[in-house]
Amino acid sequence: MTVYFPEVKKKIRFEGPDSKNPLSFKRYNPKEKILGKTMADHLRFAVCYWHTMKGLGADQFGVNTIIRSYNKAADPMKQAEQTMEAAFEFFTKLGVQFWCFHDRDIAPEADTLAETNKRLDKLTALAKKMQSDTGIKLLWGTTNAFSHRRFMAGAGTNPDPHVFAYAASQIKKAMEITKTLGGAGYVFWGGREGYDTLLNTDMGRELDHMAMLLQMAVDYKKKIGFKGQLYIEPKPKEPTKHQYDFDAANCLAFLQKYKLLKHFKINVEANHATLAAHTFPHELAFCAANGILGSVDANRGDLLLGWDTDQFPTDLYDTTLAMYIILKSGGFTTGGLNFDAHVRRQSIDNVDLFYAHIGAMDAFARGLKIAARLLKDKVLDNAIKQRYAGWNSKLGKDIEGGRMNFEKLEKYILKNGEPTLKSGRQELLENILNEYI
Amino acid sequence: MTVYFPEVKKKIRFEGPDSKNPLSFKRYNPKEKILGKTMADHLRFAVCYWHTMKGLGADQFGVNTIIRSYNKAADPMKQAEQTMEAAFEFFTKLGVQFWCFHDRDIAPEADTLAETNKRLDKLTALAKKMQSDTGIKLLWGTTNAFSHRRFMAGAGTNPDPHVFAYAASQIKKAMEITKTLGGAGYVFWGGREGYDTLLNTDMGRELDHMAMLLQMAVDYKKKIGFKGQLYIEPKPKEPTKHQYDFDAANCLAFLQKYKLLKHFKINVEANHATLAAHTFPHELAFCAANGILGSVDANRGDLLLGWDTDQFPTDLYDTTLAMYIILKSGGFTTGGLNFDAHVRRQSIDNVDLFYAHIGAMDAFARGLKIAARLLKDKVLDNAIKQRYAGWNSKLGKDIEGGRMNFEKLEKYILKNGEPTLKSGRQELLENILNEYI
Amino acid sequence: MTVYFPEVKKKIRFEGPDSKNPLSFKRYNPKEKILGKTMADHLRFAVCYWHTMKGLGADQFGVNTIIRSYNKAADPMKQAEQTMEAAFEFFTKLGVQFWCFHDRDIAPEADTLAETNKRLDKLTALAKKMQSDTGIKLLWGTTNAFSHRRFMAGAGTNPDPHVFAYAASQIKKAMEITKTLGGAGYVFWGGREGYDTLLNTDMGRELDHMAMLLQMAVDYKKKIGFKGQLYIEPKPKEPTKHQYDFDAANCLAFLQKYKLLKHFKINVEANHATLAAHTFPHELAFCAANGILGSVDANRGDLLLGWDTDQFPTDLYDTTLAMYIILKSGGFTTGGLNFDAHVRRQSIDNVDLFYAHIGAMDAFARGLKIAARLLKDKVLDNAIKQRYAGWNSKLGKDIEGGRMNFEKLEKYILKNGEPTLKSGRQELLENILNEYI
Amino acid sequence: MTVYFPEVKKKIRFEGPDSKNPLSFKRYNPKEKILGKTMADHLRFAVCYWHTMKGLGADQFGVNTIIRSYNKAADPMKQAEQTMEAAFEFFTKLGVQFWCFHDRDIAPEADTLAETNKRLDKLTALAKKMQSDTGIKLLWGTTNAFSHRRFMAGAGTNPDPHVFAYAASQIKKAMEITKTLGGAGYVFWGGREGYDTLLNTDMGRELDHMAMLLQMAVDYKKKIGFKGQLYIEPKPKEPTKHQYDFDAANCLAFLQKYKLLKHFKINVEANHATLAAHTFPHELAFCAANGILGSVDANRGDLLLGWDTDQFPTDLYDTTLAMYIILKSGGFTTGGLNFDAHVRRQSIDNVDLFYAHIGAMDAFARGLKIAARLLKDKVLDNAIKQRYAGWNSKLGKDIEGGRMNFEKLEKYILKNGEPTLKSGRQELLENILNEYI
Repeated sequence: MTVYFPEVKKKIRFEGPDSKNPLSFKRYNPKEKILGKTMADHLRFAVCYWHTMKGLGADQFGVNTIIRSYNKAADPMKQAEQTMEAAFEFFTKLGVQFWCFHDRDIAPEADTLAETNKRLDKLTALAKKMQSDTGIKLLWGTTNAFSHRRFMAGAGTNPDPHVFAYAASQIKKAMEITKTLGGAGYVFWGGREGYDTLLNTDMGRELDHMAMLLQMAVDYKKKIGFKGQLYIEPKPKEPTKHQYDFDAANCLAFLQKYKLLKHFKINVEANHATLAAHTFPHELAFCAANGILGSVDANRGDLLLGWDTDQFPTDLYDTTLAMYIILKSGGFTTGGLNFDAHVRRQSIDNVDLFYAHIGAMDAFARGLKIAARLLKDKVLDNAIKQRYAGWNSKLGKDIEGGRMNFEKLEKYILKNGEPTLKSGRQELLENILNEYI
Repeated sequence: MTVYFPEVKKKIRFEGPDSKNPLSFKRYNPKEKILGKTMADHLRFAVCYWHTMKGLGADQFGVNTIIRSYNKAADPMKQAEQTMEAAFEFFTKLGVQFWCFHDRDIAPEADTLAETNKRLDKLTALAKKMQSDTGIKLLWGTTNAFSHRRFMAGAGTNPDPHVFAYAASQIKKAMEITKTLGGAGYVFWGGREGYDTLLNTDMGRELDHMAMLLQMAVDYKKKIGFKGQLYIEPKPKEPTKHQYDFDAANCLAFLQKYKLLKHFKINVEANHATLAAHTFPHELAFCAANGILGSVDANRGDLLLGWDTDQFPTDLYDTTLAMYIILKSGGFTTGGLNFDAHVRRQSIDNVDLFYAHIGAMDAFARGLKIAARLLKDKVLDNAIKQRYAGWNSKLGKDIEGGRMNFEKLEKYILKNGEPTLKSGRQELLENILNEYI
Repeated sequence: MTVYFPEVKKKIRFEGPDSKNPLSFKRYNPKEKILGKTMADHLRFAVCYWHTMKGLGADQFGVNTIIRSYNKAADPMKQAEQTMEAAFEFFTKLGVQFWCFHDRDIAPEADTLAETNKRLDKLTALAKKMQSDTGIKLLWGTTNAFSHRRFMAGAGTNPDPHVFAYAASQIKKAMEITKTLGGAGYVFWGGREGYDTLLNTDMGRELDHMAMLLQMAVDYKKKIGFKGQLYIEPKPKEPTKHQYDFDAANCLAFLQKYKLLKHFKINVEANHATLAAHTFPHELAFCAANGILGSVDANRGDLLLGWDTDQFPTDLYDTTLAMYIILKSGGFTTGGLNFDAHVRRQSIDNVDLFYAHIGAMDAFARGLKIAARLLKDKVLDNAIKQRYAGWNSKLGKDIEGGRMNFEKLEKYILKNGEPTLKSGRQELLENILNEYI
Repeated sequence: MTVYFPEVKKKIRFEGPDSKNPLSFKRYNPKEKILGKTMADHLRFAVCYWHTMKGLGADQFGVNTIIRSYNKAADPMKQAEQTMEAAFEFFTKLGVQFWCFHDRDIAPEADTLAETNKRLDKLTALAKKMQSDTGIKLLWGTTNAFSHRRFMAGAGTNPDPHVFAYAASQIKKAMEITKTLGGAGYVFWGGREGYDTLLNTDMGRELDHMAMLLQMAVDYKKKIGFKGQLYIEPKPKEPTKHQYDFDAANCLAFLQKYKLLKHFKINVEANHATLAAHTFPHELAFCAANGILGSVDANRGDLLLGWDTDQFPTDLYDTTLAMYIILKSGGFTTGGLNFDAHVRRQSIDNVDLFYAHIGAMDAFARGLKIAARLLKDKVLDNAIKQRYAGWNSKLGKDIEGGRMNFEKLEKYILKNGEPTLKSGRQELLENILNEYI
């Protein structure tokens, strides 16, 4: 069998924090138990096919910089098969349990939908076999309804229903193959569902159409018996000037309005959160507070850059707080940590792909362990308990119990006067967090 | 009677675009009919009490720069009365129909709530008399539950229910005096309803409390028979690190979740829109598309500055597109254009207050007239009609009519193949807009 | 001769503001005299080859959307020739006087530098002929030292001197052909001259190398007798995380440090200015104040988007203030207004290219006329004169004349006390500006 | 003697990382030697008077939240004296070596400059005594020429020379008392040196005036024999719309243009760096590369907020990279780490002031230790050495030695062809950095 990553001879192993081997895990020990569950089960790492296998370093100002041996074949289907083989070699050597893909990542588009779907079937069969051979599973599948020129003005929100129909056909097929591959979920990222200018846009009508598309997906899911979780992945802008799924709250508003809430959860991407002027932890906490936290696209943005840099996540503050919120909300069920990240354009070697994933996995392993200690020591829990203690008083309970109104509360104040203020202790909590890191 | 604005001898008049008199309207002709309604009735301009009467030029790096004669009295209640007199002199000379205020703007806080409320009653009586004398009306009232130190950690979302009770008591009174003054609406701006750090915050519980407070307000409104419209005013951040009412979509999600949607509309502020990474027209269009467009805080931000600069609105692109969306959605009913804006810190003369408001009123008058022409000529309507023409085809109607599903749509594509793409014509529409300005 | 833009039969004409023909100029009347010079001579419009001829709508999330007939030939050199022909057809029909290009825009790169340069010679000869046939001139040429993968880590600032040598070779050739074509200038835009991470970067050394490269260019320019003006075009970021030519001030610091100031001026791009957190007028005013205002890349960014959207300039505030500053500083000598802008991805028709340029030219024509009236009426001049009047007093003249020091100034204050403050009149000036628009 | 911070009984001690005492240092061990120098000598921590002693939690939307016992006296001079006593109690208990102040922080302004200066003399005498009693030194002094309304339109760049004279008088006095107190430096932060609108501004003339003011300061410094280092502190905006000292590069351009470079270094503030769209390490590295790195205002901004949040620095990535660059450039001579930071508005207790400073000092101590290990292990040095190895080849040396020109370099490429590309290894370096943290 062809070897596509000869630089890495064998599976990456855990060697502990003192190892100087850059091709080892220093923190991620898949079998280690944390709060009663293995690290692997907590973190449910997935490699994404688009960046890791198909990304070659091109940007808006330059062509590809990266050359991979699995792209050498002249025949596009041959190339697709070799890419799939290389992918599973990579997944296996890295030691992740999951992968994620768009339909168009695994099979090149042909001249007609029928032909394209045949190609997809072929590659799906290959993927299924390789999943079975390796034990690696599909975290989620999705449709690329944004790269082809037909989607330039949207997929579900296109001003032309012909394009809507095309998007629907693509999603139909992508849901089918996701089911075939036993995917634990299916993601909707509306890369072109938004507008470039309000001058030519009927926002209300487009949103209605989007809801219809999602309702059809819900119906079709039921029809084919696909059991995976459906997710919406918010992003505020890019490629369009303004996207409808701006952030988790926008999605929540939309899902409630169109009675779709019970069918969808949110796939939170760190970099999309910051593009929407939220922190990554904020979006996670918002989803947790609203019962819609589903899965995570684990990457990192650059807050001084205004586009999706999709860097590998290495910031320990972010990985710690993310894992803390995820643990507090019960941990992943169908979701996981998908590395929607690509190596920098100058990281042209195969081995850079390994470094990048290893660093990210170690950073999340470290985040998990720190978060578990924070939870166990109840450091933040106690601070919050103490800060909200008043809500356990008679007054607090009466309000929360629905037994108060404006008149009663006014009487309370007329009698009791001013409250006593308490410090928020932000600096102390930040210091404590630092000592845990 | 004392004159506080002696620099402006009489009411500002419409003199037309050729006038060189800076103390005249060049565009705003209140009685002029546009699309069958007077400009005054379309625009429903309001002056805000906080910035216009109480704002004196202080910023985070410097003290007050502006000296007003109505602030000279040593006794705070005397000062409050003189300010009220000056306010109605200003409103009258400017020729607006409405004003807006926070409870604490019109009467200084005393040592106890009871005493503070007495002061409020006194000033409310004065305001009522002056409204009656001048014919000027109250667009909306609101509560300042963010300036006092007791609200440092929130009002409705405070970790201490004692503060919640205080906020409720204040809102109760503010709703009462708004009713007394015949206010057409009541606004909730949650200046401290958010968090400074997630480390000490229970977001879910705080949001529940916020909903309880708003429900109590709905109940109390019914009880006292206040007929005004309730509004929420979104703002993403400042003064807190992150506010719960981030943008219109966040508010919509919240109102739906807590079954409050039918009781509230949105008060869109231009500068808050841009702080949330939306354009002002976007927020208006989003509200219109979701049936929650209520009123407008008409100001202008600086997109290169990250705080609420609250400048007077003079950008003709913004005033045109705002009025276009407002007209399209049926125009204001209870709402209006409130100038939540303050003169720059160096604009220290009384006359600058007039210049600022005149310029803003002229800019919106111009925006209204341009928008009316755009509507009349159906320039954008036709472009949109043509762009979405496909939705009037059989396919489009079948989708919108709920008669399609994934299988049928796939069949359609297998039969019909690729769609024909049409230009979005953004540049042409931008050119046309420019020619209307 | 092949016609590439059959949709536009003849040269775009001035038809005045009442024309409803979208393929006419409503404001740009090339022969009209403004302040003693024709509009054409004031504005010196240039079309850029990269966006207008070579841009086909691809973005980071999607492939090309635009299909042009001049790209149909299978042979890349045939394609290049047909593109050149199409370009001059476009320039001529549009009625601009200038064009701009990168070396790699006009001729595709071959396997070796020698072969590539031969191709360049061929296309340069063709361009020269077409310039001569049409009377259209070259505003400036430049080198693309950022798209090829060899430049992934910089050109002049590459950690490998081999790449430095390659960049030098390319610039050498590009300067030669710019001279051949009679270019009025030559631009350096350091698309990869910056860093992606400080962790692997020696900033000081890289800056030294950059200066050496520019010094060699100065030397070579002299050697070959090229008389055009050299420009640096600042951009803060994108494609790299941080670029050395961040803004005009960064360039000024660099040019002074390395004794290059007398050889270079700045090519200010509107969109780059806002990415650097400056307004477009600020960058122009800064350059004017420091004697380094050279030429302009006339486009428009979207302040809510963090990347170079390169939209066509249509904002009348920007075009007015830009032309005001340019006129105040004496107008263009070697420089001009180059439309470094591309049609939106959905603007797929040939005719959209015309709409886009026409709208931009009209917007600048309007800006020029408004600016000329502002100048003539001395509206801003008088306000500034009055505001700085104190500097014509004895005190002001003594300070400016170098006759004061700290002791004397302290004595002045001890004697004269507090200054009298004057309003900055910002709102009034904004109103006046609006009335001129 | 009155005790103002009774909550902290004695000097904060180093107790090591395992201590759970929040009022102890876990990392900062002042006497510990790192690379041959004590931590105290490396870090040169300073407490700032304005935020720490005078900041009371007010923001643009709310009044003071913090009550300090040293503010109780009715007489402002009494208050000033008690504040000074409290300050030295705080410095001593915290265990810093330095403090910093603005003239107006230590003594309240009186009705005339003469009277104000007398007050300053009195407080300076007290400070001098307390410095002598405690051994604490002055890192730098500065002038507040931005809070008073007279400076609303600038100090050195005011359109009125009378204000220029006032600013000069204030700086004169502030330099004198800084000298009296043995200050190691003097800072210029031009809080109002910029513009609110270009419409009323003569940028070139204002910059000339600024240079004159700084030249007078240089002259006066010489005259009185003040030996401290002069610094400029860049900030891009806030309070003004645009400040002239935008960033380090702007300052460098200005200092070169006006021949002031040899007299000034830069005081880099972390939060100002990010407001200018640079990272804190970037500004330090830029200053180091240009020989102008002087001192540091050690704080932290919030990259999602657009104003100066002045938070205490606790991000270990920032403290590590900052100390790395500072160590590489030779460490502080006259400069140090001044905590230009204030406790959050809800941190109302005295003890929060201690927590905040302790956390920041520990974070920088940790950064110092990590940076020292990075240096010792040459981790980054080796990566950079290897990446730039080509510059040690003949080609590299010939270029750096000035022995190459365009023709020779072209010959080199014609002979040698394409360079071999090397990975930039960004992810690996980020992983390594993480393992050091």
